[in-house]
Amino acid sequence: MKALFSQPLHVVNAGLRGFADNITSAGGTVTNLDWQPPAGADAALGWQLANLLRDPRIEEANRTAYARYLAAQPRLFDVILARDAMPGLGGGQRRILHSGPPIAWADMCGPQQGAIAGAIVYEGWADTIEAAEALAASDAVAFDPCHHHSAVGPMAGIISPSMPVWVVEDGETGKYAFSNLNEGLGKVLRFGANSPEVIDRLRWLSGEFFAVMQAAVRGLEDRNLKPLMAQALHMGDEVHNRNAAASCLMFKRLVLSLGRLELDRAMVNRALAFVAANDHFFLNISMAASKVMMDAAHGEPHSSLVTVMARNGVNFGIRLSGTGEMWFQAPANPVNGLYFPGYSIADAAADLGDSAITETAGLGGFAMAASPAIVQFVGGTPADAVANSRRMLNITLGANPAFTLPALNFGGTPAGIDARAVLDTGILPVINTGIAHRKAGVGQIGAGITTAPLECFAGAVAALAGTLEAAP
Amino acid sequence: MKALFSQPLHVVNAGLRGFADNITSAGGTVTNLDWQPPAGADAALGWQLANLLRDPRIEEANRTAYARYLAAQPRLFDVILARDAMPGLGGGQRRILHSGPPIAWADMCGPQQGAIAGAIVYEGWADTIEAAEALAASDAVAFDPCHHHSAVGPMAGIISPSMPVWVVEDGETGKYAFSNLNEGLGKVLRFGANSPEVIDRLRWLSGEFFAVMQAAVRGLEDRNLKPLMAQALHMGDEVHNRNAAASCLMFKRLVLSLGRLELDRAMVNRALAFVAANDHFFLNISMAASKVMMDAAHGEPHSSLVTVMARNGVNFGIRLSGTGEMWFQAPANPVNGLYFPGYSIADAAADLGDSAITETAGLGGFAMAASPAIVQFVGGTPADAVANSRRMLNITLGANPAFTLPALNFGGTPAGIDARAVLDTGILPVINTGIAHRKAGVGQIGAGITTAPLECFAGAVAALAGTLEAAP
Repeated sequence: MKALFSQPLHVVNAGLRGFADNITSAGGTVTNLDWQPPAGADAALGWQLANLLRDPRIEEANRTAYARYLAAQPRLFDVILARDAMPGLGGGQRRILHSGPPIAWADMCGPQQGAIAGAIVYEGWADTIEAAEALAASDAVAFDPCHHHSAVGPMAGIISPSMPVWVVEDGETGKYAFSNLNEGLGKVLRFGANSPEVIDRLRWLSGEFFAVMQAAVRGLEDRNLKPLMAQALHMGDEVHNRNAAASCLMFKRLVLSLGRLELDRAMVNRALAFVAANDHFFLNISMAASKVMMDAAHGEPHSSLVTVMARNGVNFGIRLSGTGEMWFQAPANPVNGLYFPGYSIADAAADLGDSAITETAGLGGFAMAASPAIVQFVGGTPADAVANSRRMLNITLGANPAFTLPALNFGGTPAGIDARAVLDTGILPVINTGIAHRKAGVGQIGAGITTAPLECFAGAVAALAGTLEAAP
Repeated sequence: MKALFSQPLHVVNAGLRGFADNITSAGGTVTNLDWQPPAGADAALGWQLANLLRDPRIEEANRTAYARYLAAQPRLFDVILARDAMPGLGGGQRRILHSGPPIAWADMCGPQQGAIAGAIVYEGWADTIEAAEALAASDAVAFDPCHHHSAVGPMAGIISPSMPVWVVEDGETGKYAFSNLNEGLGKVLRFGANSPEVIDRLRWLSGEFFAVMQAAVRGLEDRNLKPLMAQALHMGDEVHNRNAAASCLMFKRLVLSLGRLELDRAMVNRALAFVAANDHFFLNISMAASKVMMDAAHGEPHSSLVTVMARNGVNFGIRLSGTGEMWFQAPANPVNGLYFPGYSIADAAADLGDSAITETAGLGGFAMAASPAIVQFVGGTPADAVANSRRMLNITLGANPAFTLPALNFGGTPAGIDARAVLDTGILPVINTGIAHRKAGVGQIGAGITTAPLECFAGAVAALAGTLEAAP
């Protein structure tokens, strides 16, 4: 102790900055760790959290849920029309699915309204965008989150009855998940564009392209998606905002399947040219695969594992494995990113889309270490990309050995967000995302990185505490 | 100075370790930098090198040669038979090309002899491997390095008249380079295997596969190889020992081209299935592209730029831009690597093949930072991969802005080896490579990392000094 007081002090402060003020004013050197009070400094919630952090029921439930996530075996099963895939869209019902938690037409953000208006015209329920908007504002069309129908959609996330959807099956649980087809970049429905060229492309996608893809998928020799996604992680993808490798690998499988079939060559060539030109082709498949992996983990009583993160451009919503169908919502964050020339954050819609299901499954922003080149698309440096993956290990139940990250010395990708850990550490799940213009009809204006709001996790943990108190 | 002597010393020693012995024995702490005398401690050569390092004629020549390397625009031009591509293989001549510097049949390593015997059977010049070996040992077959015919071949590097070769054109200089077709992994001619299945595969490659590839290449919309290779570097390839992404990207181009042609579907499907199953498909194209880039830089008087590194399994040979057709040779190093089960370094042939042309062009081992996953194939850690690329910057004339490495914050790949810098620093060019069994007929037994021997660079620098003394 004597030696301690006789030599110059360098103090590391792990706590409130105020703790170190006396040392600083006495001439000592202090390094403040990046610390903040748990539970967003809400004392009551903090005590609740402290109890939950040592609750053996949660630990046990999380082990079970996480093991189910790890065991899932997503397989590309089919491509069919949404109305044949989901009972909620069948039988002539006028229902349209959207991304994120539930929201009424009047409250939706511009791109989601724009995309819905486009989908109504595409379905033939109205002839013009104006008429479609009027119809949407009436009670004649129902709206539901994709997640209420085992589905996910990027950005606006619009799925209407006549759209084809990928069907991904979990070979382990037999559950299915669905996602729409990727339209490419530029003026596309998912970013809120709805001009005639957008509608025409949707019609081609549900016509000729659908026919070719359905035949190709039904003839696939290898339907397993996890090995393909794992390989893509070794080829610079994080399979959310960068899908160049995964799309190329899937292209290879589709070509080999189509080679075994007797289809019209011109049709096949147009379909393959479309796939070859779209480095985001695999995104929607990656999302459906992530959805079945998280659905496998969903529904374990008491589990604090996050099984859904989704945004509707107004609110960010999450679900926990242990709290069933409840949504925990907070206003969606703006997206810090790279904007196309002529646009800035002032033009941007808030964080939007179901694609954060990839991060929920340990991919996307969580797997950024796999994808140093992603920073050319979403901003930052390759070192940031590695740091993001490392940081996420603080809030996840483990690392997925099926998805290894070369830059982390082949450690698994951080996976299985524990809502308690987010609330305890204040470390927010990082999400790579596209950026839509806030007005309907414009489209994509950039891409970037954002985070899930802490309030969602505070709400989820409080609700989980409630179910535990109610439990015997 | 007083303060210096009164406080504990920590000394960094940049020089011979002996310099620091007194400090150590007096109780000081010494960190020895990893230093060794220049020119391999050969005093006479060291003085010669010192003069060359400040010779403005070399600086000027290197600038010119390096600019030509950077300006090269390799394009995939055609696939034709070797006898139609290279005059030295035409007109019924019985000549076979091999990798590395010149070598007589009797001196060749096992895999090269095995591959040549296989090629003789393939050509129909002998009916059995034994008869082929007897023919090879007579004067009835001529042997030449691939590099003497603007060609490169991986491992044994065998090119015989009836084999198809890729033709890569430099859009800038109009020069051509050639490489044979990749046979896949396992029992293949380039690793010295020559069983009937190997010969049968070669016959299929020069028959049906050749016909499909020629049609596909002639119909390509995009022939540019540099952007494809640059993209592959962002997808985890170093385009020498890892070509998974580049092969997939080339597959995409070939499929789109074949879609526009009327060819027999069954033929096309077999050819595409072969390409799709071979992640090394692009290797030989990468080598031919590297060869035209280096040939563009070759022949600049006084330049110390290395334009060829090649190994015949006995000797490692290099060429400089400024010393014309001369080879500078030394015994090839063994390869430190990962061996297939049942094999060890005792079974291995020495470093073999022309594929080090990729490293000569700044790819392969020089671009390892692009390819952390390569260490699963060649050994080491992802951190080693990044360190290798960084270290190579010490011996290259620059970094190629056309080939950027995400892990180095999108810095260019180190490119343009300066033989003077290798001799001055003792830092040896790092090479990723496959490992062949030392006996004929066996095939690949592993993959690993090796280096070019210092003696090659010593010889080259001495010869360059001679040309400078002779110059006016």
